Amino acid sequence: MYRTHNCGALRIENVGEEVTLSGWLQTSRDFGGMTFIDLRDRYGITQLVFNMDDDADLCQKARKLGREFVLKATGKVRERSNKNPNRNTGDIEIEVTALDVLNASKVPPFTIENDTDGGDDLRMKYRYLDLRREQVQNNIIFRSQLALETRKHLSGEGFIEVETPNLIKSTPEGARDFVVPSRMNPGQFYALPQSPQTFKQILMVAGLDKYFQIVKCFRDEDLRADRQPEFTQIDCEMSFVTQDEILATFERLTKHLFKSTIGVKLGDFPRMEYDEAMKLYGSDKPDIRFGMQFVEFNDVAKGHGFAVFDNAEMVVGICAEGQAESYSNKHIKELTAWMQRPQIGAKGLVYVKWNNDGSVKSSVGKFYSDEQLMTWLEKAGAKKGDMLLILSGEDEKTRKRLNELRLEMGRRMGLMKEGDFKPLWVVDFPLLEWDEESGRFHAMHHPFTSPKKEEVDRMLNGDHETMKSLKADAYDLVINGVEIGGGSIRIHDRALQSRNFDLLGFSKEEAEAQFGFLLGAFEYGAPPHGGIAFGFDRLCAVLNGQNSIRDFIAFPKNNQGRDMMIDAPSPIHDEQLEELSIDLRKQEAH
Amino acid sequence: MYRTHNCGALRIENVGEEVTLSGWLQTSRDFGGMTFIDLRDRYGITQLVFNMDDDADLCQKARKLGREFVLKATGKVRERSNKNPNRNTGDIEIEVTALDVLNASKVPPFTIENDTDGGDDLRMKYRYLDLRREQVQNNIIFRSQLALETRKHLSGEGFIEVETPNLIKSTPEGARDFVVPSRMNPGQFYALPQSPQTFKQILMVAGLDKYFQIVKCFRDEDLRADRQPEFTQIDCEMSFVTQDEILATFERLTKHLFKSTIGVKLGDFPRMEYDEAMKLYGSDKPDIRFGMQFVEFNDVAKGHGFAVFDNAEMVVGICAEGQAESYSNKHIKELTAWMQRPQIGAKGLVYVKWNNDGSVKSSVGKFYSDEQLMTWLEKAGAKKGDMLLILSGEDEKTRKRLNELRLEMGRRMGLMKEGDFKPLWVVDFPLLEWDEESGRFHAMHHPFTSPKKEEVDRMLNGDHETMKSLKADAYDLVINGVEIGGGSIRIHDRALQSRNFDLLGFSKEEAEAQFGFLLGAFEYGAPPHGGIAFGFDRLCAVLNGQNSIRDFIAFPKNNQGRDMMIDAPSPIHDEQLEELSIDLRKQEAH
Repeated sequence: MYRTHNCGALRIENVGEEVTLSGWLQTSRDFGGMTFIDLRDRYGITQLVFNMDDDADLCQKARKLGREFVLKATGKVRERSNKNPNRNTGDIEIEVTALDVLNASKVPPFTIENDTDGGDDLRMKYRYLDLRREQVQNNIIFRSQLALETRKHLSGEGFIEVETPNLIKSTPEGARDFVVPSRMNPGQFYALPQSPQTFKQILMVAGLDKYFQIVKCFRDEDLRADRQPEFTQIDCEMSFVTQDEILATFERLTKHLFKSTIGVKLGDFPRMEYDEAMKLYGSDKPDIRFGMQFVEFNDVAKGHGFAVFDNAEMVVGICAEGQAESYSNKHIKELTAWMQRPQIGAKGLVYVKWNNDGSVKSSVGKFYSDEQLMTWLEKAGAKKGDMLLILSGEDEKTRKRLNELRLEMGRRMGLMKEGDFKPLWVVDFPLLEWDEESGRFHAMHHPFTSPKKEEVDRMLNGDHETMKSLKADAYDLVINGVEIGGGSIRIHDRALQSRNFDLLGFSKEEAEAQFGFLLGAFEYGAPPHGGIAFGFDRLCAVLNGQNSIRDFIAFPKNNQGRDMMIDAPSPIHDEQLEELSIDLRKQEAH
Repeated sequence: MYRTHNCGALRIENVGEEVTLSGWLQTSRDFGGMTFIDLRDRYGITQLVFNMDDDADLCQKARKLGREFVLKATGKVRERSNKNPNRNTGDIEIEVTALDVLNASKVPPFTIENDTDGGDDLRMKYRYLDLRREQVQNNIIFRSQLALETRKHLSGEGFIEVETPNLIKSTPEGARDFVVPSRMNPGQFYALPQSPQTFKQILMVAGLDKYFQIVKCFRDEDLRADRQPEFTQIDCEMSFVTQDEILATFERLTKHLFKSTIGVKLGDFPRMEYDEAMKLYGSDKPDIRFGMQFVEFNDVAKGHGFAVFDNAEMVVGICAEGQAESYSNKHIKELTAWMQRPQIGAKGLVYVKWNNDGSVKSSVGKFYSDEQLMTWLEKAGAKKGDMLLILSGEDEKTRKRLNELRLEMGRRMGLMKEGDFKPLWVVDFPLLEWDEESGRFHAMHHPFTSPKKEEVDRMLNGDHETMKSLKADAYDLVINGVEIGGGSIRIHDRALQSRNFDLLGFSKEEAEAQFGFLLGAFEYGAPPHGGIAFGFDRLCAVLNGQNSIRDFIAFPKNNQGRDMMIDAPSPIHDEQLEELSIDLRKQEAH
């Protein structure tokens, strides 16, 4: 037996007991005749004591042990004279009478502390050491807890977890598939699922009624900062439901998860139409922890001789409360430069300050009188001490830039409060997006999303322009400006689905080859259905007020899609290639 | 809103309520002025009534609907005059006042009944219709319940569910890997995991202490009847544990699963050494629902002039209770032919009957006296009416054949009782298996399994012959002759792991290239650890007294590894091949 207790278990009530603990040497301190070792496992840290007077050999042995050695210690629990109130086990220590070294350790390449000195690459390579750090370990434990609560809650609501296959069929729409050559079917490939979308719809046709799955999905994309080639979804689908019922169901789930894991009680989730979100926040995932909604100035700003505004499609700004006196010319210049970076690409930034003394100051003061500027301030509902920040240009682009500015001001003004969670349903997304470049429609959500019931006739019979204005029963859940997930009511009618494939530029043959099974299924009594998927990695991060999903994945890949620890991907043997009936292409020089 | 209740919810207490139901038309019957429709969903079936006298149009409409149409019906709940006690909703029916056809259905290619007329291929192709059948749906729901109970129980015991990656590294040991070409790393491949073995060991090195995961695994094998290229495991690992503690933990899990899903209370699990299992049952997974243990006859059968026995390494048999009078010469002949089929390959079969009248009859009667045969019968503990069945030949092969015979007799004699569950731990497996053909050792369990503590020195320093006799801390859980899972205490010492790789024929370079990260991890304080994995698909089947795992997988593949519904695998586009830097090989004529 390696232990009677773990390293976080012993309390003052255990004093006098003979116990055995196993764990890692966290730190070791010598004080002349005494040696103290902090023994660590995932449950906590317990202090071991060795005394030269009691057992000189044992004490000498203890002194030779290095960090991260694995030890088994037996001894008596005693009360500490010098208690440590920051530690659960801080009232006691173990007077060790027997010590086994279960394994030695080389000196770790970085310190196993929350504040480690290890860089990203080193910690990825030695992930097993990084995972010993308390905060990383807590993230992984949190993830496990969140998954369990999700499963318990959804099962309690009658959902069935069904495992859908991982070896499926390549459908070269959207992101790239990872593919898997089939040895038994030479020249043919499986694909790894980007999502279980069609399978969960098939389960609805099969009458499963309420499906969920916490499921790995795969996308072969060029990795940006916080993307992973494999990621996890809470994937759900329901039959015989309206959008309202789906939103209510997943609002309950979200509330349950916040309550059960971090003890936060969320209020009812407001809803906002996509069009309104774009108009007021320039984003389909607004952070509504703070206001600072967009104010349009076209009516008051145009026609006064300031060419920039006169020629702009849209003049739009925000009111930064109490910031008039905080922004000197230097600060404004710095903020303008921030907005002019290529990532954002604003041409310039106009301010209007309403100083505390009642005076008005603006970068466009020579084009507008104070009275005119006062109408702007009034329009924005400003008070003395506030400052307007205004952009102009092409409508859509300008709003996107203003969204960035609003978020930056929110950060600077401390309006994104930690521990403040503001969920929001964004609803009524457009069904289709016209892409000038490729000259065709793209699905705003995905090709299986249904137009709103009242739009079906327009979709089946309308002209090209009509298609641009179709609204879908599609929705996103946004928390603090982060998209947690999204879903839609699906098409369950073969004719409507075919029409959608047409609009998206599929030939009849392509649609049949890729999705024939689904179109076929729709002919055998497909029920009305809809669903949603939450990004599970993202949800873990948001609940912990963090940005990076990588910290919540036990073995993440780096930005080149590599697992640095196991060194994958890697070359395979020629015999394997031969069995798979594939050859490597010679690489051309770039 | 599509429904106020599901089709299994309404009872006599609901009479008088106005309700709305949605579901599928199961059957429809016309009786002159009345039409009855059975409306089905996954919760049950409710009878709808239409009356010509009340609403002729509606009744006419109802008469035109076919099987599997999707309907929404509103009406009043009323008491049935002709109750159906076999149905939860059998006391009531719905007097329909409004009916919507939500979707039509073509005539299904097979009947959606438990006793369907659809063949395997048809049901695989139209899996969405097959999944509407109650027993298939119940299997899928059972699987969901079993997974949830597993998670709740293990989480309650302090296990953390950790998701290990699916895109890992090819290690061409054991079964073949499925591989995934990496677009971003041309010429390199990921592999799909055959199991998360090394990752769960890394998690132990990381201090996670108690890990589990219900996880998809992948093996590119030639598919036999009941193998799937992707399958699911309950995968576990623990630190600072002995074999006894692991067995106790998973005995608790197994008992919990049997109790919570099928209400069966299992007693404590007996243990049997591998050597004993092979000796008494000729199998490392004996079905101990019945006895019929092997009896060796070398001492009494040899040296009496019967050359077949005299020349055999082993003469061994079983005693079939009460079968003496049930087996005529014709039956014996048929049984002998069954044993001589190529799958089993016995040369012959010897019987000794002790008839109820006290007489002895045997196929080798001319070589042995009745008195001699009586010593055989006594050795086997036979009674009047029993029959010995005896095989001879090379020891190991003969026992394997006798195992088949024992199982067949168990089946014929009705000793494999449904609902009778007899779990068994088989322990003390050999560490290594010598393979004459390849001239090298194979790992009996896997390359990470530890020899028993007391064997470590012999393993590090022993000669070739010594290696053959090493025992491992490896164990299997067997229920009713089916291997549910297995595991072992792992090596956690770099030198011992290297020695094992040596014995298994890895060069230093191969070991380093494939498992360098694990060997490296062992140098940074790897704790003693061990684990187990259960075959989840198999466990589902065993709990339901069934043989085929395919019936418990929502979307199984056929014996050619194909998904018949979506028609995968399939060719991919040339552009995809190009992006992945691979070419197809031209197929040679076979």
